[in-house]
Amino acid sequence: MKVLICGVDGYLGRSTREYLLRRNHQVYGVDDLSKRSHMESLGRTLLFDDSNFGDNAEFIRASLLDQDFVFDIVGQNFDAIIHYAEQPSAPLSMLDSGWGSYTVENNLLGTLNLLHALKEKSPETHLIKLGTMGEYGTPNIDIEEGWIDIHHNGRKDRFLFPRQASSLYHTSKILDTDLIWFFVRTYGLRVTDLMQGPVYGISLDEQHNPVTHLAYDDIFGTVLNRFLVQAAVGVDLTVYGRGGQTRGYIDLRDSMACVELAMENPPELGALRIFNQFTETFSVSDLADRVAVAAEFIGRECRIGTTPNPRKESEDHYYNPKHTGLTQLGLEPHFLSTENLAQIIDGIISVGDSVVVEHLRPSHSWVK
Amino acid sequence: MKVLICGVDGYLGRSTREYLLRRNHQVYGVDDLSKRSHMESLGRTLLFDDSNFGDNAEFIRASLLDQDFVFDIVGQNFDAIIHYAEQPSAPLSMLDSGWGSYTVENNLLGTLNLLHALKEKSPETHLIKLGTMGEYGTPNIDIEEGWIDIHHNGRKDRFLFPRQASSLYHTSKILDTDLIWFFVRTYGLRVTDLMQGPVYGISLDEQHNPVTHLAYDDIFGTVLNRFLVQAAVGVDLTVYGRGGQTRGYIDLRDSMACVELAMENPPELGALRIFNQFTETFSVSDLADRVAVAAEFIGRECRIGTTPNPRKESEDHYYNPKHTGLTQLGLEPHFLSTENLAQIIDGIISVGDSVVVEHLRPSHSWVK
Repeated sequence: MKVLICGVDGYLGRSTREYLLRRNHQVYGVDDLSKRSHMESLGRTLLFDDSNFGDNAEFIRASLLDQDFVFDIVGQNFDAIIHYAEQPSAPLSMLDSGWGSYTVENNLLGTLNLLHALKEKSPETHLIKLGTMGEYGTPNIDIEEGWIDIHHNGRKDRFLFPRQASSLYHTSKILDTDLIWFFVRTYGLRVTDLMQGPVYGISLDEQHNPVTHLAYDDIFGTVLNRFLVQAAVGVDLTVYGRGGQTRGYIDLRDSMACVELAMENPPELGALRIFNQFTETFSVSDLADRVAVAAEFIGRECRIGTTPNPRKESEDHYYNPKHTGLTQLGLEPHFLSTENLAQIIDGIISVGDSVVVEHLRPSHSWVK
Repeated sequence: MKVLICGVDGYLGRSTREYLLRRNHQVYGVDDLSKRSHMESLGRTLLFDDSNFGDNAEFIRASLLDQDFVFDIVGQNFDAIIHYAEQPSAPLSMLDSGWGSYTVENNLLGTLNLLHALKEKSPETHLIKLGTMGEYGTPNIDIEEGWIDIHHNGRKDRFLFPRQASSLYHTSKILDTDLIWFFVRTYGLRVTDLMQGPVYGISLDEQHNPVTHLAYDDIFGTVLNRFLVQAAVGVDLTVYGRGGQTRGYIDLRDSMACVELAMENPPELGALRIFNQFTETFSVSDLADRVAVAAEFIGRECRIGTTPNPRKESEDHYYNPKHTGLTQLGLEPHFLSTENLAQIIDGIISVGDSVVVEHLRPSHSWVK
């Protein structure tokens, strides 16, 4: 299939590009490289970074905030457009009002430009949008796959599942979903919105060669990947608070497979299809325990520490999100295993000298 | 009380300023006058316009998109900030991608600047935000006042009432509500969000002197005020489609009273209080009938016409929105009456020569 990846320079963008190229799709990529400059301005660095990416002929450096560019590229007959091109860091969005506004502006207006362009130039192209399980927050009811039937005073109707997130970044993704649903039902677009949980891993095959870069710091990294880096360099795992925060996680290979399954099975025109894209749920302290076991499996000592939670989130909550849609499309999950975690730690050990250890600990509190 | 009105040059901004000054509040106003330039660029004009407004010492011309300005003004110890400063036209937001993006950008980022400024500079100030009943759309269940308890698989939780609107403008107000709820629950702000229905009228007292200007055209006007202008100038009332669209309406005097009631009874810190701000529901064809009766009451012939609906909305739907909160605070409604409508028509007749009749008919379809 002919596919455009927006945000192709990110952790998921790079791995998706590589995955789809290996599967013989025709892949084009766009990125404004803004995350690189944000990381640089905060002194953060990537592991496994491949700086030659920009030389690729199918890569265009551009921003989705440029409406003329977006209308032009969307008009070029893609079967699918994968939209990762958002400011992806929750901590960054909570750093100050400037970063907060930037996050909302960049994420919303980029998505809106894509939607307007699809409506005007290519209404049959399938938009695959990366949402996040974080949109739902941690409600006291079962989390359905995007939608819920509400029965009320003897009548009923179907609505987007209620969403209330714990950061401004996650809230920007809620706003995206609202916008997407408006365009789908008003103009008959077709969209798959992937509510993904945190992804872990760096490679796609048995050779364990990294196919993407990895942020590991407190601002741009995510919890499981950060624990793996901490285990690799031999510092305490930073469990935030009591570690009871439970979320859905997914192996990088499964994340890629989900995107391809969505691509190859597009929804009808006029449908917003939502998948909860994760394979297993763990609490943060579960994850720490599993990383410690994996580290010991390859002979590394690993200590689990705790640190005051810099976030505002519940550490003891109900969590029962459904996730059957992608399995029904054929996903065969790679569940989290000691062996796999150990192999990832091993890979990181090879670049361990590059890790800035002080960036593994939280530097900013979300609520003063 | 010391109060700041953002968007003080609008239909509601001007009348709120006048109402609160008469009630001896200390009133400051901000506006970037952008709606005037938008109307001018589309050749639209206002009735009863008072161009001297800018001479007032308590008026500042500025945009809420200017974050430094917003932080500075919000820090000046207001008891309440009334936020009307949004692009308010649904048809404008649907005109093309440029106006659509402008609407989302202006409305969201202005609101976000206010929220960040309140958090940083004045967390106790009460934000009174103008939402719209249009956020809810026309669901097949009773519309509660902002919130709903959802019972699901034997558990329950309380959420924002689901929202799905019929225009990009109304959707921008949904996004506002999402942002506001995030800031309230994360940083403990206090906000009243007024889900208002279309407002009608131009004066506040028995002398029927206009206290605000009136847009009457297809882009910036609203349905009942437009019917009243059509009756005054003797052209057919433009019922869109079959006229079954039912909404909640409110007299201008009641809209003002609601804002003052909200001001004088602020919610607790950390609470997002939502009122459905209307007093009666009517279908569009009901309204047309009532305007025709009022016109005949003062001896004017009035014909009800129909025109293909330029909007994408249901013309036959369930509609049962609750609205008890403001009555409980003490609102004494002015219900729609033939006499009142007739007096408004009479007032408009005096400026009837200024009406551009061709702008009373729809010029743009929302979905091609």
